[in-house]
Amino acid sequence: MKFWSDTTKKLKPYIPGEQLNETEIVKLNTNENPFSPSPLVIQEIKKLVETDLKKYPDPQSNELKDSIAKFYTTDSFKIDNKNIFIGNGSDEVLAHVFMAFFSGKKLYFPNITYSFYPVYCGLYGIDYNPVPLNEKFEIEKNNYENLDGNIIFPNPNAPTGIDMPLDIIEEILIKNPDNLVVVDEAYIDFGGQSALGLINKYKNLLIVQTFSKSRSLAGMRIGFAMGDNNLIEGLTRVKDSFNSYPLDKVAQIAGKASMEDKKYFEYTSNKIIENREWTISQLKIRKIETLPSMANFIFVKVDKAESIYKKLKERKILVRYFNQPLINNFLRISIGTKKEMEILIKNIDEIMGE
Amino acid sequence: MKFWSDTTKKLKPYIPGEQLNETEIVKLNTNENPFSPSPLVIQEIKKLVETDLKKYPDPQSNELKDSIAKFYTTDSFKIDNKNIFIGNGSDEVLAHVFMAFFSGKKLYFPNITYSFYPVYCGLYGIDYNPVPLNEKFEIEKNNYENLDGNIIFPNPNAPTGIDMPLDIIEEILIKNPDNLVVVDEAYIDFGGQSALGLINKYKNLLIVQTFSKSRSLAGMRIGFAMGDNNLIEGLTRVKDSFNSYPLDKVAQIAGKASMEDKKYFEYTSNKIIENREWTISQLKIRKIETLPSMANFIFVKVDKAESIYKKLKERKILVRYFNQPLINNFLRISIGTKKEMEILIKNIDEIMGE
Repeated sequence: MKFWSDTTKKLKPYIPGEQLNETEIVKLNTNENPFSPSPLVIQEIKKLVETDLKKYPDPQSNELKDSIAKFYTTDSFKIDNKNIFIGNGSDEVLAHVFMAFFSGKKLYFPNITYSFYPVYCGLYGIDYNPVPLNEKFEIEKNNYENLDGNIIFPNPNAPTGIDMPLDIIEEILIKNPDNLVVVDEAYIDFGGQSALGLINKYKNLLIVQTFSKSRSLAGMRIGFAMGDNNLIEGLTRVKDSFNSYPLDKVAQIAGKASMEDKKYFEYTSNKIIENREWTISQLKIRKIETLPSMANFIFVKVDKAESIYKKLKERKILVRYFNQPLINNFLRISIGTKKEMEILIKNIDEIMGE
Repeated sequence: MKFWSDTTKKLKPYIPGEQLNETEIVKLNTNENPFSPSPLVIQEIKKLVETDLKKYPDPQSNELKDSIAKFYTTDSFKIDNKNIFIGNGSDEVLAHVFMAFFSGKKLYFPNITYSFYPVYCGLYGIDYNPVPLNEKFEIEKNNYENLDGNIIFPNPNAPTGIDMPLDIIEEILIKNPDNLVVVDEAYIDFGGQSALGLINKYKNLLIVQTFSKSRSLAGMRIGFAMGDNNLIEGLTRVKDSFNSYPLDKVAQIAGKASMEDKKYFEYTSNKIIENREWTISQLKIRKIETLPSMANFIFVKVDKAESIYKKLKERKILVRYFNQPLINNFLRISIGTKKEMEILIKNIDEIMGE
């Protein structure tokens, strides 16, 4: 550690869910999409690689930005290339958000939430305040009024899966005109209500989304942020002081093709919602409680959660267990195909019957 | 700028060379490789995309690390997976190096060098000292003895192209046992002598390399660092506190395939060396001076450099001009195919004859 900087010595890195290489495993631990990406994505990548990998990619991913703008623009809502920032997965986007806007100020986020947030705070020396959820594991809007610092929360929240109604987000925005409010919408496409429609009205709102969940492209690392020009410009300054070209050519074309195949996106997202509701109902029959979820995962309350996690793992079913106060009697289970969820339920029955 | 952090307000981002979309252009401005990547790369990508983009990639790019270790291991030199760090282009690797080792300490680098270094210093608040080159534009070893801070320089240096003999690098390592010495070898495969063989002997040496130049994969964003375990561990801590998965699946497989096709790598690198020597000799005939280059670019001394840069651009030949003291009478010209270099020489003749 002789050459490590003081910050490096103090870091507590994020630990992602296990990535096992076994093909036989039912992998329900990192909220990936069980469906392959759109066939258009595969087709476009194959075309690209024949022609063009030796030159640098577009540093600002403009065609990808355009495709996102087109996807979200409607008769009543306009979003422009200039309102969009692209990064190497939403994790990189979030890292730049923490550096560009949160460093040197106070930050508030829920005490139970995405566990990367405190890690970024460690990296950039940000003073943060965990805000308790209420007894139903919901974000309590009263705790976010007139704060003296910036705010970030996922919607739906992770790992609870609980979403927040749009009118409450708007109230938080109104009650914090001088604070930036970042809504991390990684899981928004599975039934939640996006706050995107508010970005033209509230300059203090930044939305972060990803291609890793609803667009089946976890393997390609594409995330983005949407908000007022001025916020996007701040993020771009940080990016251009860190790495000019964060997205390779293949990722840029993959993201674009994915945005262009709206039908496939809607079809697969709806399938996941169906499978989620089926799984929740099956668990309910077995008197197993699940928090209400608008995400592609469910947060399931069980006695001896760690033991069940281990038993499922022995049976080649991977779910996620957090050995943390308040949530150590829960399992977070990603929603897979119908068949995968049937295997899960069958195995839970067997384990419970032991 | 209301929501920008103080650091963001002060940033002076790096400006990469122009990426024009015109296909007709002779692009000699960003040191890309004029040859396509190995056919094995294309083949492996096509296989991969049919199967596997929906799951997260290996966060540590282990197979890619293994392929690099295998490429560099010889009878007399052993390098292990644990000595290798992978990042999203060598720019991201460098960013993490600045955070992991340089932040909070003094840093020394040449006054004429890769212009991203001072940008990283701005991002992480690092106090840096530019060290003058000598009158031949060489790094002067006497200026790097017993320093009170860390050291970074490219070898060959950019944008001069001048390389440093290995024994001088070793002297600098010996004279700075308590400082980290980072050798940025982005351009090492075009005739320079890598310091890689010294990493087992000197714990204060870190080597940074890239797939963007000699491996024709600028479009895929792959960089890496090699050094003592302990340095790699520090970099990994920073990476895992920033973005767990910086390399997508396609980039990982592309890098691996490229490392495995050693013949193609040697063939294309030799071609570029040939084209470089041909270009230098042609310029010499015309009494145009070029600094001695071991890179895939040359630094050419001309009167009215900016005007020639502009005239070449009008003729659809893109080279790089730096409007900076000490080097504003030079053009940096990337080495392309023989045909591209012939076009360059022909156009220089025409411009000079005007």
